[in-house]
Amino acid sequence: MKLYSYFRSSASYRVRIALNLKGLPYEYAAVHLLRSGGEQLTPEYRRICADGIVPSLVDDGAVLQQSLAIIEYLEETHPNPPLLPSAPLDRAYVRAIALQVACEIHPLNNLRVLKYLKHELQVADDAKDAWYKHWVKNGFDTLESTLAGDSRTGSFVYGDTPTMADLALIPQVFNAQRFNVDMQPYPTIRRIYDEAMRHDAFVRASPAEQPDAE
Amino acid sequence: MKLYSYFRSSASYRVRIALNLKGLPYEYAAVHLLRSGGEQLTPEYRRICADGIVPSLVDDGAVLQQSLAIIEYLEETHPNPPLLPSAPLDRAYVRAIALQVACEIHPLNNLRVLKYLKHELQVADDAKDAWYKHWVKNGFDTLESTLAGDSRTGSFVYGDTPTMADLALIPQVFNAQRFNVDMQPYPTIRRIYDEAMRHDAFVRASPAEQPDAE
Repeated sequence: MKLYSYFRSSASYRVRIALNLKGLPYEYAAVHLLRSGGEQLTPEYRRICADGIVPSLVDDGAVLQQSLAIIEYLEETHPNPPLLPSAPLDRAYVRAIALQVACEIHPLNNLRVLKYLKHELQVADDAKDAWYKHWVKNGFDTLESTLAGDSRTGSFVYGDTPTMADLALIPQVFNAQRFNVDMQPYPTIRRIYDEAMRHDAFVRASPAEQPDAE
Repeated sequence: MKLYSYFRSSASYRVRIALNLKGLPYEYAAVHLLRSGGEQLTPEYRRICADGIVPSLVDDGAVLQQSLAIIEYLEETHPNPPLLPSAPLDRAYVRAIALQVACEIHPLNNLRVLKYLKHELQVADDAKDAWYKHWVKNGFDTLESTLAGDSRTGSFVYGDTPTMADLALIPQVFNAQRFNVDMQPYPTIRRIYDEAMRHDAFVRASPAEQPDAE
C-alpha cells in the first residue's frame, strides 16, 4: 500500500494510526501542502486525487479517498485488531464521535479554510485565531461532557483499546495544541491523549515521526 | 423510532431518506433551528443531544447522533434494501462520496457557521454568499468530474439504486439550489438529482413534505 500524506494533516494522521494498529506496512509519499503553492494541487497529484486533498491510499492499484472511508475499508479488509466494537449501538457511538471531530471541528479549521479567511475575507490574524479556537472549543466542550459521562469511556474513547473514535480525536488534540488551545477544561480528552502517546502505533503515526516532518 | 429533525437541515434530510428507503416508520419531532434563538440549544434538547445539533434518532431508548453514523446503524440493523454495495472497494467509494459532501462542503455552510461569519466576523452579505458558493462549487466541481468519469455511475451515484452517497448528495443539491448556486456546470449531479426526485422515498423526505415545513 502507498499513502499520500502530509505530516501535519490530521486526516492523514488518522489513517497512519489505523495502518499501524492493523500492522500494515506502507510506502509513504509526501505531499507538501505549503510548498510550490501546494503540491496537492499539482496535475500529478490531481490525477490521483481530483479533490487535491490528502490522504489518498493506493491499495493494489485502487485509489481510496476520505480518511474515514479509508479506515472503514481497512477495517473490512483487515478486521484484526478491530477498530469498531461489535454491537450496532456501540459502533454507532464510536462512529458518531469520529464524525463529530471529522464534520464539526476539523473542516472549519483546515488549511484551505484558514487561507480563505485570510485572503478572500481579509480576516485579521487574531480573529482567525479566535475562529480556530471557537470551533475546537465548541467541539471539545461537547466531547468532554460526552466522554466524562459515558460508562463506555475507558483508557480510550470506547473501552481500553483504540477505536476509530481515537483515530479522529488524537490528531485533533495534536492540532489544537499546535494552535495553543487551552486544554485545561478537557481532563478526559487529555487523559485519553496521554494514554495514546504511550502507544507505539500512535507515536509512530505522529507528525514528528514522519519522513516529511520539519 | 423518533427522529429529531428540522425540515431544512441537510443532515436530517439524509436520515429521513434512509428511513424511507428502509421502510421504517418513525415519529417526527420538529426542532426549529431559528425559533426562540434556536430550539436545538434549549436545555430540553441538549439533554437528548449535548452538541445541540440535528438530527438525533431515538431507537428503543438509545439516542444516536451524527447522520452518517445513524445511517450506518440503520444499514447494520435493517440491511434491506442495502445502502452500501457489497465489495469493500465499492463501499469505500460510496462512503468517500458521502464524506466528501459531509466533510468538505456541508460543515462550511451550515447555519451556525454562516451566523459566525455575519455576527463575529462582520462579513457582509455578498461576501457570505460568495463563501457559501465557493465551498459548494469547490466540492461539486470534484464530484461532477468523479461521477462523470467513473464507470460505476448509473442513474444514481453508484449503479441504479440509491446508496449512502445519494443520501448525502441530494440534500446538498437541494441546499445549493436554495442558495442560488448555478447548477449548469454539473450535468451528472443534476441528472442524479432529477432521478431521485422521481423516487418516492426521496420526495417524502424532502423539506417541503415535512410537518414543520414553512
